[in-house]
Amino acid sequence: MIRVNVLYPNDPGSTFDMHYYLSKHMPMVQQKMGAALKGMTVDQGLNGGLPGTEAAHRVITSLLFDSVEAFERAFLPAAAEIQGDIPRYTNVAPVVQVSEVKM
Amino acid sequence: MIRVNVLYPNDPGSTFDMHYYLSKHMPMVQQKMGAALKGMTVDQGLNGGLPGTEAAHRVITSLLFDSVEAFERAFLPAAAEIQGDIPRYTNVAPVVQVSEVKM
Repeated sequence: MIRVNVLYPNDPGSTFDMHYYLSKHMPMVQQKMGAALKGMTVDQGLNGGLPGTEAAHRVITSLLFDSVEAFERAFLPAAAEIQGDIPRYTNVAPVVQVSEVKM
Repeated sequence: MIRVNVLYPNDPGSTFDMHYYLSKHMPMVQQKMGAALKGMTVDQGLNGGLPGTEAAHRVITSLLFDSVEAFERAFLPAAAEIQGDIPRYTNVAPVVQVSEVKM
């Protein structure tokens, strides 16, 4: 199993429309990924571990797939449309990471 | 539900002993957190989204708790012991983030 993390940095001046993200963007991603998508989560940063500290990321999203190949097969045909939607909810570029689930 | 993410940056020269982490550190964390811990995952970075790119983080770990208060109650008494174990498996300081699970 692999996880694709999409991390939106909490840069000064950054904006993020969580309502649009949850009600429009993520349902569109889910529909485009189809059965290849095995699970997804969206987390909104609260703090940096201790009260009063800043979270490093405004939002961390995770998408589960069976394999890197399954992710690429599902994502690449939809990449332009998904990435083209990003400016509708944020002004920061997300950091994307593909990881192997170890535990 | 809240998620505590522990992100180990993929800095040049960084080291990470995944065997120790999975067989010693995470079981110790699990035991210290007890019933407050509602789930955990450990992901090992493969790439930055496209083949041949670098993952921003060597490892991303997530820990689920019912609330920030439940996390703090479980973590703070064990913090010194857990943090003191970090140099046994890595030479990078993790970035910690507490987030609210939205989806």
